[in-house]
Amino acid sequence: MQIAPPEFHLARHARVREDLRAASLDALIVTSLPNIAYLTGLFATAGAAILSRERLALIVDGRYAVTANARQQMLDGIDVVVVPQSGSYEETIAAVAGTFGNGRVGFEDGHMTVRQHRDLAARVAAIDSKIEMTATTGVVERCRAVKDVWELQTLREAAGRLSDAAKCIIPKALAGQLERQVAAGIDAQLHHVGFEKPAFDTIVAAGPNSAVPHHRAGDGVLETGDLVILDFGGMLNGYAVDMTRTVVIGGSRPRERRLLEQVAEAQAAAFAAVAIGRATTDIDRAARDVLEREGLGAAFSHGTGHGLGLEVHERPRLTKYRPELPAEPLAAGMVFTLEPGVYLEGWGGARIEDDVVVTAGGPEWLTDVPRLYE
Amino acid sequence: MQIAPPEFHLARHARVREDLRAASLDALIVTSLPNIAYLTGLFATAGAAILSRERLALIVDGRYAVTANARQQMLDGIDVVVVPQSGSYEETIAAVAGTFGNGRVGFEDGHMTVRQHRDLAARVAAIDSKIEMTATTGVVERCRAVKDVWELQTLREAAGRLSDAAKCIIPKALAGQLERQVAAGIDAQLHHVGFEKPAFDTIVAAGPNSAVPHHRAGDGVLETGDLVILDFGGMLNGYAVDMTRTVVIGGSRPRERRLLEQVAEAQAAAFAAVAIGRATTDIDRAARDVLEREGLGAAFSHGTGHGLGLEVHERPRLTKYRPELPAEPLAAGMVFTLEPGVYLEGWGGARIEDDVVVTAGGPEWLTDVPRLYE
Repeated sequence: MQIAPPEFHLARHARVREDLRAASLDALIVTSLPNIAYLTGLFATAGAAILSRERLALIVDGRYAVTANARQQMLDGIDVVVVPQSGSYEETIAAVAGTFGNGRVGFEDGHMTVRQHRDLAARVAAIDSKIEMTATTGVVERCRAVKDVWELQTLREAAGRLSDAAKCIIPKALAGQLERQVAAGIDAQLHHVGFEKPAFDTIVAAGPNSAVPHHRAGDGVLETGDLVILDFGGMLNGYAVDMTRTVVIGGSRPRERRLLEQVAEAQAAAFAAVAIGRATTDIDRAARDVLEREGLGAAFSHGTGHGLGLEVHERPRLTKYRPELPAEPLAAGMVFTLEPGVYLEGWGGARIEDDVVVTAGGPEWLTDVPRLYE
Repeated sequence: MQIAPPEFHLARHARVREDLRAASLDALIVTSLPNIAYLTGLFATAGAAILSRERLALIVDGRYAVTANARQQMLDGIDVVVVPQSGSYEETIAAVAGTFGNGRVGFEDGHMTVRQHRDLAARVAAIDSKIEMTATTGVVERCRAVKDVWELQTLREAAGRLSDAAKCIIPKALAGQLERQVAAGIDAQLHHVGFEKPAFDTIVAAGPNSAVPHHRAGDGVLETGDLVILDFGGMLNGYAVDMTRTVVIGGSRPRERRLLEQVAEAQAAAFAAVAIGRATTDIDRAARDVLEREGLGAAFSHGTGHGLGLEVHERPRLTKYRPELPAEPLAAGMVFTLEPGVYLEGWGGARIEDDVVVTAGGPEWLTDVPRLYE
């Protein structure tokens, strides 16, 4: 697994610091693990960071001390603090925040539980009552939504490998197999093309199961004539790519063929709508318009796409307007899926998903294999 | 994937309701996904539940409506509420809580972010100012720590399959292979014996990497004489089992052999200490005493074990005494790992991990393959 060179991490710190200044924050306590990976290159199952105007403290427990110290050697301005075996993260975060002096210290309100916050706030107050703990939402995530050059290169490489894997995977969905056998074959192929792991539990949904948008892969048997949704992705250098194809076992008949064409048309309309400055809701609207015109609006029961990066679902979210998910303008360097789907309960469903990058010259597909399989 | 029969879910509701009564709570908002699976049999990536003294409301978004309705058909006293496409979970949770009448409504403070809590509390206050939102910690998890008969049967079956897989996996760690190739082979074997998926990212740590407790599986090459830690687990019917073996490539030499024997002795001492009513910290102490006596106390840098169930790390935690992890007494029906390990930086490490159930007659191993490989 490769990690971005130090200059990219330092540039990320600078971007987040600009946002801290704009929000009049002296420091930010980072408790989201993907955000920690973004800022430090440390991929851990536990940890914290505090980014101040000048320094970054990386707080880890004993398991990650060696790796964190290696990151410190690479990156200027990083201090590593190890949580004592008899201590807690909250205790250590509070102590480090105390050394950063007085001021407004943000925390990530979407990545800190009520319990952690209560513990941390009490400890901070005990150490230094002049620190003002301030809730923030999505500060680092906003930076992450626009990929840097290293991230774009990683995502292009990953999407290329996913396309290669897809070409082997898709023809192997055959009548008589169990969904979970097909899923195991997909996972093996993902390993084979070099992914660290599947980006999520691989979905193989056959026949009526294809009408259940969240169906994973179980004991369903692929039968001739079935619509089968194959949704799979991989992690490369910690970054996720994601693809879906829907096949018809034994070749499509007119009704299934028509459904696949409608979904592909919705995806193409979404792609055509992508441009710098366009609202995320507009992209969703473009796909939804096609399916509504075809009488399939109610059967398209999820959003049109989601950002890809250190998480398989991240900003931007390409959905209908919702009060808690305000539309945001697309920017060059954003990478996301376009994945309209239609689900007809008791009969079957279809979804087609590819990955896109927004560039100054317009949108570009990152994944590239045929949309329709006969 | 099999789900526990309805009577087990109803018995779980009854157990949690006893705790609600004891805590003078009228209802509990459940936002932990494993806790939702425990109470309803719905394994979802999003959802909420509210358990009152009489009813259980299962709150899902459109993706899970069909599956949730199927659960409703199976279980008495469940209401399914679907979050509208233009709405939010918080909005729906508040509305459902409002229909449950006045009173003290608990929420899970370790499974609700500060942001969710702020949103939910404002909505609850707007709907019904007589509801008193009350923080709770680990109510459902306390029940989950003691497995019911169906869970014990599932975990026994899963541990048996893991032992079968181990017998195929361990001999295949050979000189010249990459760690990630070995990991891919392990994952394929886990699928082969019927696991839904690996319980976590499989760990293959060779040579110096074996001294890094959190090392996963990368481009390290297995070389003759290397200590190699293989740590793998599987999910069966949503339940996790977990095993570690340390092998020496090409057969062990005296120093490696001695280290493995010391770790095995620590594990045996922990097992011998297991009894109903013993404190979790006593079990850790038993393993730690052996390694401290051998001068390896500082090199044993993690706890002795963790509970297994719907999560791969859950209660009970068998660790040193820490203020935020108070010792708890062992009870019949608890299932956990015993996994002492020793890590000597720059040289190598060893860990041996097996799964145990506490019964009235004493502890029993659930996993069963030789500890030491020549």
